[in-house]
Amino acid sequence: MDLESLTRTSGEWLKATGPDSDIVMSSRIRLARNLAQFPFPSRADDSVRAEVDELLKTQLAKHPAGRKLNYIVVSGLELLDRQMLVERQLISREHSESHGQRGVGISDEENVSIMVNEEDHLRIQVLRSGFALDDCWQEINAIDDAIEADRTYAFSDRLGYLTACPTNCGTGIRVSVLMHLPGLVHTKEITKVFQALQKINLAVRGLYGEGSQAMGDFYQISNQVTLGKSEEQLIRTIKDVVPNIVSYERRVRQELVSKNRRGLHDQVSRAYGILKTARTISSEETMDLLSSVRLGINLGLIDDMEIPLINELFVHTQPAHLQKIRHEKLETVDRNVARADYIRQRLNERR
Amino acid sequence: MDLESLTRTSGEWLKATGPDSDIVMSSRIRLARNLAQFPFPSRADDSVRAEVDELLKTQLAKHPAGRKLNYIVVSGLELLDRQMLVERQLISREHSESHGQRGVGISDEENVSIMVNEEDHLRIQVLRSGFALDDCWQEINAIDDAIEADRTYAFSDRLGYLTACPTNCGTGIRVSVLMHLPGLVHTKEITKVFQALQKINLAVRGLYGEGSQAMGDFYQISNQVTLGKSEEQLIRTIKDVVPNIVSYERRVRQELVSKNRRGLHDQVSRAYGILKTARTISSEETMDLLSSVRLGINLGLIDDMEIPLINELFVHTQPAHLQKIRHEKLETVDRNVARADYIRQRLNERR
Repeated sequence: MDLESLTRTSGEWLKATGPDSDIVMSSRIRLARNLAQFPFPSRADDSVRAEVDELLKTQLAKHPAGRKLNYIVVSGLELLDRQMLVERQLISREHSESHGQRGVGISDEENVSIMVNEEDHLRIQVLRSGFALDDCWQEINAIDDAIEADRTYAFSDRLGYLTACPTNCGTGIRVSVLMHLPGLVHTKEITKVFQALQKINLAVRGLYGEGSQAMGDFYQISNQVTLGKSEEQLIRTIKDVVPNIVSYERRVRQELVSKNRRGLHDQVSRAYGILKTARTISSEETMDLLSSVRLGINLGLIDDMEIPLINELFVHTQPAHLQKIRHEKLETVDRNVARADYIRQRLNERR
Repeated sequence: MDLESLTRTSGEWLKATGPDSDIVMSSRIRLARNLAQFPFPSRADDSVRAEVDELLKTQLAKHPAGRKLNYIVVSGLELLDRQMLVERQLISREHSESHGQRGVGISDEENVSIMVNEEDHLRIQVLRSGFALDDCWQEINAIDDAIEADRTYAFSDRLGYLTACPTNCGTGIRVSVLMHLPGLVHTKEITKVFQALQKINLAVRGLYGEGSQAMGDFYQISNQVTLGKSEEQLIRTIKDVVPNIVSYERRVRQELVSKNRRGLHDQVSRAYGILKTARTISSEETMDLLSSVRLGINLGLIDDMEIPLINELFVHTQPAHLQKIRHEKLETVDRNVARADYIRQRLNERR
């Protein structure tokens, strides 16, 4: 897999296809797995880590469940390349910043990524555009089974799958959907959503996972509990709640339009205008403005722009992508200029 | 003169020609004169006002100093038409809101306007684009002489020309230049300019004269004293001080560019972007954004737009012009939408 080519493409989760993709950007399931005969990565020395990496690299080369995976040696990448994989949600920030031999197997469409030697030996992730958790589950289940057919996972009859961190123990599953909720943010109704989700033990995070800020009105909703319930039950909880949030967001959007169409039209149109003309722009402002434009397109208030390009810009304007696109390391000030240049170019070429 | 046609043209002071017109929008001289045999308008009853109006209307029809003047019966105009003349600086707000028979003679190019029955019987005004007070003086002097050849002005050997308000007594002259000073406003150096001007008895006002706010970084600088000095001396004071302000503004602009070209480029470019995309916009914001765009064009930071159109928009986006252009009366909210529509249309048709 040519990392340079990533700067010219979008990952699966940016395709803007799939059910409810105006609001649900992507669905994701990941499984945490460990090999029974090796210590967890945090307890393994360099030679054990290397052994695990080699073993699993070979394993992934067998196309689990018919999936061709490109294996990238993350420990051999430069910082910028690792950051780019983080920005594309193909590896975690922890996996990028960790040490020792480690890697990731990525499918061509970037809808499967399997980290080796992250917190656990294996972090299997399947992504889909839109609201499509069943598809994610079907595929990840097949991949997981295919690997388990050859390898013995660390498993306890009492606790289930054993993981480095107790919070993942049991099913080892994290089910999450990435939602774009500008209407609920704008009307401040989003706090009600948070409260409701907390009550049923669901976590809300920003675009880049734990600890990240909710930029661009994006929120990841995921399960916190992994123990004591089946995978199907955990998926069911998310599957049940997401349609409610989707219709809440849709209702709020329609209220915004009917109460103040002019004001909303003005806001999204100005956001588009600023993106097309700014000469320097921060990542945060970019996310906010792209969020407005995305809302504007979905409401039919902006008609000369398509969602996939906007989705792509959310990722391509991130620091590492920008620097890869420009083929140079850039400090914040220069990145802000490069970002504005890139956005102007991309938005104006479509006109 | 067809008032409707004014919505499709610019006045003399918007041409953006003439010396230093990047900073000096226009030069203006006006003379206050009264006919000796009639009481001042404020002391005249309706029949006397009517008599003065008829007399001077006939007088102006004689093409003073070869100047063809279109006589408009201001007292016969609807409010919107009167406001439009105010917005074009052809009549004063007071003349628009006054009562009784009154009018204004306007040259085709809108560089001469002579109000009849304003505060004084005659308020003769000559306008030029750019810094051109000598031209103004030459022309207004000739017009004044031509009228005085037929009519006896109220004049005292001790006090000079007599006027309704003592502050105009003596020469009856007001010399003013309209300056665009975004650099001095941006750096807050403008207060130093104000202080220096006050010390030499010069007044600073906003775009629409006494009591008006300094919108769009426009300032009118004019003499306060009219008595005890000759017209030439009063003109000389302004003529001497304006080049200093012009070079101060130029210096500050260059400093802004050299210190933070990117930031300035970003600011003017975004202003342009917002004007091209906003769906509702107030008059104040319009003036501020147009001011930034005007600065950007003059500094070569915006290269696909010309100053005359920007100058024109300063006037055409004023409330009365907008309503005349749309052929309907509009409340503030609807005017803001109409203004945004008009600006988008005008700016995008040039692309």
